[in-house]
Amino acid sequence: MRVGHTLIAMTSDQRAPRVVVLGGGSWGTTVASICARRGPTLQWVRSEETAADINDRHRNEKYLGDEVELADTLRATTDFSEAANCADVVVMGVPSHGFRGVLEELAKELRPWVPVVSLVKGLEQGTNLRMSQVVDEVLPGHPAGILAGPNIAREVADGYAAAAVLAMPDQHMAANLGQLFRTKRFRTYTTDDVVGVEIAGALKNVYAIAVGMGYSLGIGENTRAMVMARAIREMSKLGEAMGGHRDTFAGLAGMGDLIVTCTSQRSRNRHVGEQLGQGKSIEEIISAMNQVAEGVKAASVVMEFAEKYGIPMPIAREVDGVVNHGSTVEEAYRGLMVEKPGHEVHGSGF
Amino acid sequence: MRVGHTLIAMTSDQRAPRVVVLGGGSWGTTVASICARRGPTLQWVRSEETAADINDRHRNEKYLGDEVELADTLRATTDFSEAANCADVVVMGVPSHGFRGVLEELAKELRPWVPVVSLVKGLEQGTNLRMSQVVDEVLPGHPAGILAGPNIAREVADGYAAAAVLAMPDQHMAANLGQLFRTKRFRTYTTDDVVGVEIAGALKNVYAIAVGMGYSLGIGENTRAMVMARAIREMSKLGEAMGGHRDTFAGLAGMGDLIVTCTSQRSRNRHVGEQLGQGKSIEEIISAMNQVAEGVKAASVVMEFAEKYGIPMPIAREVDGVVNHGSTVEEAYRGLMVEKPGHEVHGSGF
Repeated sequence: MRVGHTLIAMTSDQRAPRVVVLGGGSWGTTVASICARRGPTLQWVRSEETAADINDRHRNEKYLGDEVELADTLRATTDFSEAANCADVVVMGVPSHGFRGVLEELAKELRPWVPVVSLVKGLEQGTNLRMSQVVDEVLPGHPAGILAGPNIAREVADGYAAAAVLAMPDQHMAANLGQLFRTKRFRTYTTDDVVGVEIAGALKNVYAIAVGMGYSLGIGENTRAMVMARAIREMSKLGEAMGGHRDTFAGLAGMGDLIVTCTSQRSRNRHVGEQLGQGKSIEEIISAMNQVAEGVKAASVVMEFAEKYGIPMPIAREVDGVVNHGSTVEEAYRGLMVEKPGHEVHGSGF
Repeated sequence: MRVGHTLIAMTSDQRAPRVVVLGGGSWGTTVASICARRGPTLQWVRSEETAADINDRHRNEKYLGDEVELADTLRATTDFSEAANCADVVVMGVPSHGFRGVLEELAKELRPWVPVVSLVKGLEQGTNLRMSQVVDEVLPGHPAGILAGPNIAREVADGYAAAAVLAMPDQHMAANLGQLFRTKRFRTYTTDDVVGVEIAGALKNVYAIAVGMGYSLGIGENTRAMVMARAIREMSKLGEAMGGHRDTFAGLAGMGDLIVTCTSQRSRNRHVGEQLGQGKSIEEIISAMNQVAEGVKAASVVMEFAEKYGIPMPIAREVDGVVNHGSTVEEAYRGLMVEKPGHEVHGSGF
């Protein structure tokens, strides 16, 4: 049964790999705390206060509130060089817009072969690259992967059970690294489908906006489930065309993350959809939020991909219409419902 | 784009097929009303009062309340012979325990070749047969299919948008029949995967019990999404071994229906899981419900299938342990969490 990843586990007389997490946000900190329960872990943060909070009080009050106690073995630093030099594994917890810049700094000091695991669900603006592609450009030779799944940071930090998938091209490495991101309550599965996991993470936000728009129209539970099931099909088709595996979209990073993103009250993208449905402009909505809703940026990118790969993506198209081209939420749903349903798997429409 | 099913549509000078729906429950009535908007439809019900309610008031107050108005073209009868003799398409809206008996009566009078579409998400007790297999036994030569999806009857009856999948072995027939089960707000997709749709419908109830048990333990949104994503994987594996297609489990009848069944307050199977978590015995829970929770019966059947096909099904196993073998809900979740996560797709455990 469970062979492979136990066979190639490091033996106890090997030096434990030192994990370096770059970024001080809620998810980066949560993952750093998970890693620190398994072995030596250093978190690089920009703010002296956050570093002190982590080191002295085992808290990151700014992002996780005062109640979440982090692993007391987690150490934080603001010294980027220290972090870059001691890393055996790098975990990228910085947002997509700062990702390349941090990697470029890292490239000057990081030892060869050190694997880089991204926590980012989004694409690079301008290039539309996935984060592992950015790693390949800036740090060629370093294995690049992604850890993703239905992971509301605060819930994981609070100790609720959750699962994620760690995607790396090399399955021996994935199985090995997977052990670093695993606790009794945080289940890290492995896969080789880096493309699928990254695409699922970038696309699901667009579909969460679609479901949020639906909430504002008072859609029922059947309708919501319909949109989510059709969203998975739509994502799968593009994802497969781009080189991902179908199974990934039916898994934790696809369906699992979509469920959380579409149903959680905490979902920013769902919130955007609801606000659009109340007639607010996208500019108003964005300026009233102090965090980024990745789905807004992703909507137009998805349409570029849809065209490039020749995949009809009716749900994404309607979201793009509302976000970027002045359609109303009512028009978007009406547009979907007039499409005639065909074969569930092979049909090309909604 | 959408070819095929439009090309083989009946032409307007052909006689419209008469749909006969057998059964007077909430979903059978809702489907009958949908069909009646498209063409001649007769519903057979056992109760004179229900027949009169449908014919005179366009209501089925007993099952759908007083507010739902049915198509005024829908006609009901208590005369089984009349229904059996005039049917061009039979829709089976009777529960699994009465399914074979009704088919046996039908066999005496039904014309040859008439297709039979089941609305039943469950297996025959004793034989563990899918409903289309029962049709094959009792009515050999009649094409057998199933209509299933995330379809809370009352919501569909109330006019909320919803979708289902119609599975028939012959795709021309599926495309043709699909038109009978379609309105502006009810989207019927087609597929040839009868096995997958029937297995998904039978299994999802077991997983809804698992999620219901989780609610009683206070699981978070991440945890719920994890259980659902792993449930889809587990169902897919058994379903594929039994001859279904993976895509079906990521579609409306799999993931779509699972989402509704696991999240809706109206879900009976979810309710069973919650009550189990409050320490009640399965006998107590069942006797307090006036409707059947299919997942209770399905739990042990799934374990028989798991053994027969050699598929490890850890979530179903834990549900079976609580429902049939005296385990507690806490033990069930603990049992899952100690399993070491492996490859997301190829791993054999939870």
